[in-house]
Amino acid sequence: MAAFRVGARAVEGGRFQANGGGMASSRLQAPPKNPPNREEVALRGKPRSNHLAAAAKLRRRAGPMPLWRVAVFVSVALNVATLALLLYHYAAPPPPHHHHQHSRLTASSEGSLAAAARREDRTTMAPSTGKPAVTPDSVINLDHGDPTMFEAFWRETGDAAELVIPGWQTMSYFSDVTNICWFLEPELDQQVRRLHRTVGNAAVDGYHVLVGTGSTQLFMAALYALSPAAASAEPISVVSTAPYYSSYPAVTDFLRSGLFRWAGDASSFEGDDYIELVCSPNNPDGTIREAVLASKPGGKTVHDLAYYWPQYTAITKKADHDIMLFTVSKSTGHAGTRIGWALVKDRAIAEKMTKFVELNTIGVSKDSQLRAAKVLAAVSDGYEPSEADARVGARAPRLFDFGRRKMVERWSMLRAAAAASGIFTLPEETSGFCNFTNETAATNPAFAWLRCDREDVDDCASFLRGHKILTRSGAQFGADPRYVRVSMLDRDDAFDIFVRRLSSFKSGEGEADGVSTAIWEHV
Amino acid sequence: MAAFRVGARAVEGGRFQANGGGMASSRLQAPPKNPPNREEVALRGKPRSNHLAAAAKLRRRAGPMPLWRVAVFVSVALNVATLALLLYHYAAPPPPHHHHQHSRLTASSEGSLAAAARREDRTTMAPSTGKPAVTPDSVINLDHGDPTMFEAFWRETGDAAELVIPGWQTMSYFSDVTNICWFLEPELDQQVRRLHRTVGNAAVDGYHVLVGTGSTQLFMAALYALSPAAASAEPISVVSTAPYYSSYPAVTDFLRSGLFRWAGDASSFEGDDYIELVCSPNNPDGTIREAVLASKPGGKTVHDLAYYWPQYTAITKKADHDIMLFTVSKSTGHAGTRIGWALVKDRAIAEKMTKFVELNTIGVSKDSQLRAAKVLAAVSDGYEPSEADARVGARAPRLFDFGRRKMVERWSMLRAAAAASGIFTLPEETSGFCNFTNETAATNPAFAWLRCDREDVDDCASFLRGHKILTRSGAQFGADPRYVRVSMLDRDDAFDIFVRRLSSFKSGEGEADGVSTAIWEHV
Repeated sequence: MAAFRVGARAVEGGRFQANGGGMASSRLQAPPKNPPNREEVALRGKPRSNHLAAAAKLRRRAGPMPLWRVAVFVSVALNVATLALLLYHYAAPPPPHHHHQHSRLTASSEGSLAAAARREDRTTMAPSTGKPAVTPDSVINLDHGDPTMFEAFWRETGDAAELVIPGWQTMSYFSDVTNICWFLEPELDQQVRRLHRTVGNAAVDGYHVLVGTGSTQLFMAALYALSPAAASAEPISVVSTAPYYSSYPAVTDFLRSGLFRWAGDASSFEGDDYIELVCSPNNPDGTIREAVLASKPGGKTVHDLAYYWPQYTAITKKADHDIMLFTVSKSTGHAGTRIGWALVKDRAIAEKMTKFVELNTIGVSKDSQLRAAKVLAAVSDGYEPSEADARVGARAPRLFDFGRRKMVERWSMLRAAAAASGIFTLPEETSGFCNFTNETAATNPAFAWLRCDREDVDDCASFLRGHKILTRSGAQFGADPRYVRVSMLDRDDAFDIFVRRLSSFKSGEGEADGVSTAIWEHV
Repeated sequence: MAAFRVGARAVEGGRFQANGGGMASSRLQAPPKNPPNREEVALRGKPRSNHLAAAAKLRRRAGPMPLWRVAVFVSVALNVATLALLLYHYAAPPPPHHHHQHSRLTASSEGSLAAAARREDRTTMAPSTGKPAVTPDSVINLDHGDPTMFEAFWRETGDAAELVIPGWQTMSYFSDVTNICWFLEPELDQQVRRLHRTVGNAAVDGYHVLVGTGSTQLFMAALYALSPAAASAEPISVVSTAPYYSSYPAVTDFLRSGLFRWAGDASSFEGDDYIELVCSPNNPDGTIREAVLASKPGGKTVHDLAYYWPQYTAITKKADHDIMLFTVSKSTGHAGTRIGWALVKDRAIAEKMTKFVELNTIGVSKDSQLRAAKVLAAVSDGYEPSEADARVGARAPRLFDFGRRKMVERWSMLRAAAAASGIFTLPEETSGFCNFTNETAATNPAFAWLRCDREDVDDCASFLRGHKILTRSGAQFGADPRYVRVSMLDRDDAFDIFVRRLSSFKSGEGEADGVSTAIWEHV
């Protein structure tokens, strides 16, 4: 992949993953407030009608038996009421026009009327749905690694990953006063260790587990913990081999810290003391990375293993570096939950990293920690059934099977489209033997590192923007602007439209589209 | 309160709210894994027994009517099964020894066996319980403002503040791509505005609502947004009138930012450009504050209004400053949820603050945002019943009534104890007319600013530590170490033991306790 490292330049702070989109996407129409939801409709429909039917049947057969009749109707009424209640817990908030039906169903006394009323309020608690739905003419925003591809999987898991939090739970700042990371929920600690043991992608024995508000916060925590303590010391140099994740320079420099300073491409670094960031598989280009400066004495490394999971690459060994960063955003797709974790060998480093999170945000959302624990448990259950599931021969859905299937499918679609276009090239496919699946598997990176070969295109990102495809320029990764990074993790509809547009590119079409290019370049 | 501002000194970074406790508390025994829970037991008990009783009655009366009998039993069985299911959503995870009863209840087919099994797993998802329970001999840790006093209120609100999140919800990084704060859940935005309108403590019209991982993150975001942009510029001075919240200097300086720098007590500040932090009611001493440097041209102010709520002070006016910070930690007691919000007038400032949160943590937990929205809605409902509640004459519990009652009670207990001790003094009580309650109300600060008057005690914090009471020294607030800050928001048992110990102090007892003082001073 050496060819991909040409034209490496350090970039200044300010450019960042979610940024371009915060701006760009704001041009799109707002997301629908209450998206219709198949499961929910099904849930509301079936059971009720079953019971009413049963009641009717009983009524028809009713002989002169008043006491029995009463018993039956009381019983049926109870069924209907409890089921109606139950549905509010299993179903997502139904669209407004369904409310009254529901509250009437449970309105058998003033008490339950009040309850129904309060539940009716609850249905107004509408969660966001992320980026708006797309149409064939939409702007397709693949600038960020928004992992909405995984929603389809979690919709199929029923209540296995559903979280219920009573109003009085986890109100304290503290989770475990006996743990170095005193704000870490013990359940998350356990589920993180369990999943790594199940997958075999990282060593956990003898490691401290730390939780952060996404792995970005733990990245900053690591820089803080690895910086020289002496007030007199110069800021330590932070480096990574180009192309490197565009947020590394931005996050390192945005506060102009006197503790650490971005120093660009590791492969051209000259100094002695440094922190090398090793992202493997690498964001943006999916290559498997090793530290390049590891030999030097004053050197420290942070391994960002956000993408070292079976849906993206072969699990070839159990990673056992000093500091390893992971996140649910890329492993399970729960980016909105903002939970990352670090596996840290050294106690003193773990304490300093914990101190950073304490000073930065006084700990990490316990609601999200519990949700992450729930989700990781559901993933492990798929491959290592719990005793309870095993007893009854049940098996939870398997996330990595789903993820691998989708990624293989999408990569073959993309390679076909690039070939059809005649002007785009992609990194060649690599593969390895996966100890988790026990078979040879190709790498299917979460991002495509796409190069435009047209002589008249020296800025691939703005060329694609001219075709209403938002990507991130290679320049932001310290690389050649003829490259762009494209997210492979968006919803099916967006990905399909992207691939269709890409395959329709022909030399010269760029000009034909000059107008819309102009439009987009002036926003 | 001028007398309280003597001996003001800037303090260095490192000392911080949750810090002392992370250390100090680690000496206490670990929290119990599955605390018994009254509500839950009640919930599990009643409905089931009702139905079994009903079934039994029907069995006794059963004539020679096989078809009816079948119908009734099927129906009753359905009741029991659905209710059992339902209870798993309403009740908190029951202690392990209850599991089997439950799964047997719903084990009518392999499908439901599997479901029951999975629910059994769910019950192992044990959330943390915060600091361990205390006994009369325990170390009482009142170093932090851990707001567990409010748990008692939320235990009484039933499902009004319960959050249910399906596995597939809010997975995207984005909440509303049309909002400056693109990661803000629209529902939280609405409930924040609704609560401020209900309470009348802050203006919201024409303000941008921003969300942060606690208000600490938004405090840093404000410093970032108010700092000079020019790379050449000197770091701007950050000041606050002593005694000031001990985290201000720590959070301002821990990364040695080139953008801003802690400059100590505002009342003795000489320079031109500055950011003045105004905390009102003030942490630690509860005084009502105004900016003292507001007249200067290069000056900017950030108003920390975390405690400007009716349980702590009279709401005398609708605050309408440029940047106002709030948090659920102190308003509703949900510190573990880590949600704070800022009300910001200027669009450019709102954009820069949003950028900070984006670079620091790529947004804020959506799970916690939805929980905060749920909780704030429940608070507003208590004072401004929803249409649905109004229709049926239902009224949600009233948080501020509960909070005010508790604070009045605790402050009178504390004043009595201080008087009894003969060696401790407290700030004199102040009061004002509250526009929210329409009556004159005394201020009941969330912290007691306690002074030890014994000649031989010049460090009140270590003197109290000698009596197994952990507080925060006045020195950490830029004030006299004869003062300590004591949390008034802990659970009843801890507060009662604290007050009892305090009232038992007599001049000379310190010596008698010299041994334990020695012990604790060597930790």
